[in-house]
Amino acid sequence: MKQSASHPFDDAMQLSADAPGQYRGEAPAPYWNMVGPFGGITAATLLRAVLQHPDVLGDPLALTVNYGGGLVAGEFQIQAVPVRTNRSTQHWYAELVQGDRVATSATAVLATRRETWSSTEIDFPAVPPAASIARLPPLERAEWTNRYDMRFVHGAPTGRAHAPADPGSESCLWVRDEPPRPLDFASLAAISDVFFPRLFLRRPKWVPVGTVSLTTFFHADAAMLAAQGERAVLGTARSNRFGAGYFDQSAELWGDDGALLATSHQVVYYKE
Amino acid sequence: MKQSASHPFDDAMQLSADAPGQYRGEAPAPYWNMVGPFGGITAATLLRAVLQHPDVLGDPLALTVNYGGGLVAGEFQIQAVPVRTNRSTQHWYAELVQGDRVATSATAVLATRRETWSSTEIDFPAVPPAASIARLPPLERAEWTNRYDMRFVHGAPTGRAHAPADPGSESCLWVRDEPPRPLDFASLAAISDVFFPRLFLRRPKWVPVGTVSLTTFFHADAAMLAAQGERAVLGTARSNRFGAGYFDQSAELWGDDGALLATSHQVVYYKE
Repeated sequence: MKQSASHPFDDAMQLSADAPGQYRGEAPAPYWNMVGPFGGITAATLLRAVLQHPDVLGDPLALTVNYGGGLVAGEFQIQAVPVRTNRSTQHWYAELVQGDRVATSATAVLATRRETWSSTEIDFPAVPPAASIARLPPLERAEWTNRYDMRFVHGAPTGRAHAPADPGSESCLWVRDEPPRPLDFASLAAISDVFFPRLFLRRPKWVPVGTVSLTTFFHADAAMLAAQGERAVLGTARSNRFGAGYFDQSAELWGDDGALLATSHQVVYYKE
Repeated sequence: MKQSASHPFDDAMQLSADAPGQYRGEAPAPYWNMVGPFGGITAATLLRAVLQHPDVLGDPLALTVNYGGGLVAGEFQIQAVPVRTNRSTQHWYAELVQGDRVATSATAVLATRRETWSSTEIDFPAVPPAASIARLPPLERAEWTNRYDMRFVHGAPTGRAHAPADPGSESCLWVRDEPPRPLDFASLAAISDVFFPRLFLRRPKWVPVGTVSLTTFFHADAAMLAAQGERAVLGTARSNRFGAGYFDQSAELWGDDGALLATSHQVVYYKE
């Protein structure tokens, strides 16, 4: 029997190691989206597989997850392979397999960080504190939205397009695990995918959508994540281009002290 | 003996197929950077390996290249594997190996595009035409800069930091292959890496730098690339954050008719 951890996020990412880099897990019902798990939990689970490997060196710097699709309820296997280890970076490839098909593939780069000159060019948005905004009620048919406390500054999913005066696809929200959980690399990877499809902010018509490829760059080190603790992070996301069945999305995730924790970019399929 | 193609870019990407997905090539001296090939040519060559595979389905949608480093002059091998094929997307993993080490790994997602609602949210920059700007002289110790015609609107590599009045890391330039060559997915992948390290626009001190992970999203289809032909594309790039030995860069590549062809994101190592 599987031993239950204390938080649903940790439960969802629980992996049994059969050998170094060979894991078994189960597609997590509490993080279900319309036709499969929330993409963020799959990204986090693949990253977790890498971080659990006995040969792991460094902390996450870049994570790319390619969603092949078709992940259904039940057991899956993950294989994570260190393909190249340098003095300060380590390069990984991982596959999540269900039945005889690769449902998801991923690469990760880990790195050892050290003090250098630093500068953040983009500005922390001027926003009201999370506590002053009402939580978005969880959405029907998206069980995973119960697992996050999301408070929208603007760009909430309302089922109608933005007002003509505000034609963009940008959203800005405070977001944290629900119940609260100290931020770590895995939960930051998951949160990089919490943004509802930008398409629905531009066009209120419901059509099938799904992330195809997600890349997250981690700017935070472990100390910055520890300093953030359980408090909500601020996320902003917008699209550059919609066309020919695919749109992109770029997002920033900020600590509540104004530190840029991660930037994330994805390309998303849409029908029509 | 290797048969020479007509353009140095095609010569550089020339691969001999030993079996489906198994290729041999040679690190291209005409695209050499300071301590190895220009990252863009390696990205293009990995993409070319995928596109030459007999089972290929669709055009490039997303490409992620992780630079493990240590690629030196001489022969390399590439293995490209289709890990998942759907009706409209195909997911690939590829490795470039030299000796007994993986120098570079990559994932690619190909997709079949079709007509849908479309919208570009970001604006084509107001810039003077390429012909009105002088070409940047090729840089010493960077042979690859002879292979591109680059004309900077702003943010040229001058060896000194931006003026205090313009403290950002943004560059904007017209760029095309030199000699001219019709744009295709491989050359667009290479051009997504032509931006000089943003660090040097912020801080004029020379330190070792190198791209660790590069992700490019292709918004253009083959018809849009064909329409662009040999004319220069407009590239813009800037960083969000420098810190702890790594900085990110986000870039846009535009056709000269104002069509957004690609967006690209990378994370770059720097020393000190």
